[in-house]
Amino acid sequence: MKIINLSLIFVLTSLIAFADPLPSKPPVPADNPMSLAKVELGKKLFFDPRMSKDGSVSCNSCHNVMSGGDDQMSTSVGVNAKHGGRSSPTVWNSAFMSVQFWDGRAKSLEEQAKGPLTNPVEMAMADHSVVVARLQAIPGYLEEFKKAFPKEIKTEKDITIDHFAKAVASYERTLITPNSAYDLYMKGNKKTLNASAVRGLGLVQSVGCTSCHMGGNFAGPTLPEGTGFFQKFPVYPGSEYEKKYDLVKDGGKFEVTKSVADKGFWRVPTWRNIALTAPYFHNGSVKTLPEAVKVMAKTQLNKDLPENEVSDIVAFLESLTGKFPEQKMPRLPATEGKTFF
Amino acid sequence: MKIINLSLIFVLTSLIAFADPLPSKPPVPADNPMSLAKVELGKKLFFDPRMSKDGSVSCNSCHNVMSGGDDQMSTSVGVNAKHGGRSSPTVWNSAFMSVQFWDGRAKSLEEQAKGPLTNPVEMAMADHSVVVARLQAIPGYLEEFKKAFPKEIKTEKDITIDHFAKAVASYERTLITPNSAYDLYMKGNKKTLNASAVRGLGLVQSVGCTSCHMGGNFAGPTLPEGTGFFQKFPVYPGSEYEKKYDLVKDGGKFEVTKSVADKGFWRVPTWRNIALTAPYFHNGSVKTLPEAVKVMAKTQLNKDLPENEVSDIVAFLESLTGKFPEQKMPRLPATEGKTFF
Repeated sequence: MKIINLSLIFVLTSLIAFADPLPSKPPVPADNPMSLAKVELGKKLFFDPRMSKDGSVSCNSCHNVMSGGDDQMSTSVGVNAKHGGRSSPTVWNSAFMSVQFWDGRAKSLEEQAKGPLTNPVEMAMADHSVVVARLQAIPGYLEEFKKAFPKEIKTEKDITIDHFAKAVASYERTLITPNSAYDLYMKGNKKTLNASAVRGLGLVQSVGCTSCHMGGNFAGPTLPEGTGFFQKFPVYPGSEYEKKYDLVKDGGKFEVTKSVADKGFWRVPTWRNIALTAPYFHNGSVKTLPEAVKVMAKTQLNKDLPENEVSDIVAFLESLTGKFPEQKMPRLPATEGKTFF
Repeated sequence: MKIINLSLIFVLTSLIAFADPLPSKPPVPADNPMSLAKVELGKKLFFDPRMSKDGSVSCNSCHNVMSGGDDQMSTSVGVNAKHGGRSSPTVWNSAFMSVQFWDGRAKSLEEQAKGPLTNPVEMAMADHSVVVARLQAIPGYLEEFKKAFPKEIKTEKDITIDHFAKAVASYERTLITPNSAYDLYMKGNKKTLNASAVRGLGLVQSVGCTSCHMGGNFAGPTLPEGTGFFQKFPVYPGSEYEKKYDLVKDGGKFEVTKSVADKGFWRVPTWRNIALTAPYFHNGSVKTLPEAVKVMAKTQLNKDLPENEVSDIVAFLESLTGKFPEQKMPRLPATEGKTFF
């Protein structure tokens, strides 16, 4: 069955040019259609630190949309300065990923949004009922939830964690960065890439990087929500980098399924805006993009790239920084004259 | 000398109606004129968590402009989850305060902006040179500093901590909330306050609150930058609240000057948006606004207010929540392919 799935994926990928542009619209699940009200509510929730135990951590703390959609740390700082074992992935263009988290354990943005709330090293809420109780106790949110879910929510008692998740996911589906230098180049403006980046564009194909980092999001083929595009890492074990960067201790998908076949399998991450999201890899152990390129070439393709090729590939990757949409700052509804903390 | 100063203040205050509207323009120091470039740069710096040791704390973390300009905690969470002894004051309308911090130890917004950067329980940078080194190492900031300080900054070497402070202060001078229900009422729209708030408006005068909480910002008379309007707290010692809320352990201005005459003296805080900034007092020990009103009446005026009067005063204080200006979200300049953390 696994073999059939893999074959299917290879058939699919052979049909997909690695060079597709980033779609301007994200896939939207049938049970959570987008609306302006939902997006605006989701933005407030995304920025609201009251969704964490002590009021110090919001979604945006680790997925900062004012920069590359992560926090530029190896591992994020949660409530009580706790750290987990994995580096925050970017929220930008996460709408195009068919599964979420490094190990793909969430089948949708909705499912992902519920995870960090109750993770003791992240937002540290005791359980989802505490989150819902907070939402119900912030009077201004009711009006917004009613607008976002007019058929379902009449009073604050109707608010559930799934409404929270649907609103946050809807906001995240607006976080798309089209029109990078690379995209403009592919549309015909040959001035947007310099010679080094153009060489890099050739190299990522000839070296073999795009056999995984393909598609509009450079994260694999477009697959139905919940599918996931996973690859083994490292493919070539035993390199100097493995120990240096502690690359194999964390079993990736294995940690979720406990199936030996999943050991060392990881969701293929996006290249979009990768120049903004150092440090790199699941544990954030590699500090710079040139080093990340070298590690990947060695561990995945068993190649020692010369410095000039690394530098060209980096120039190409830098051209994948997109145009970030202008956003209005949200205003968070108040708990007048009182506080949770 | 101190007596003369106090007399002067009382002469001044008798000339000032407690009911002045909030000015639409802040006072601006001669050596830091406002400019759009400076404000935009200051906004980025205000939101940039890279100004803290581990990249987890920005000015906005404790002075959240998406809500009441504080963090709704008793004491803020700094780097490594450390806490100081005082509650974050609001940044909204801080432009109208003639000194900054609870003890007034900073003579200007510029001076204040430099404090938390190197406070070990706040942003925890080793010293200002580390902050400047970070600024110099973020390439996108140079262009912004050049635009903000065209005569002074040509290369990144010209960037100083004072430029940081001037930009942040300029942004903070835009954080003004006019046109509260109270302001509209005073301009003649009698519908904006309900009967309870109108009674409260009378009570804050008759009870005596506005002998200190006067002026457009309800924080004392308009005084030249660096002057400070301080009051003794508690005026009436020995109340039940003193112990319950640990009100006298912290000596306020005394902790700065070590002069016994300053013991228990504090900068009079603003009432503007006070409904959004629970918990209350310098140590954030009082959780609700009604309780804060009771504590103040007892400790400052030796009055036990009946519940209906407390409730009317709270209704009036709630009417001081202003209109918050719409803001565009800043984009933080990148360190391409690398990180500080």
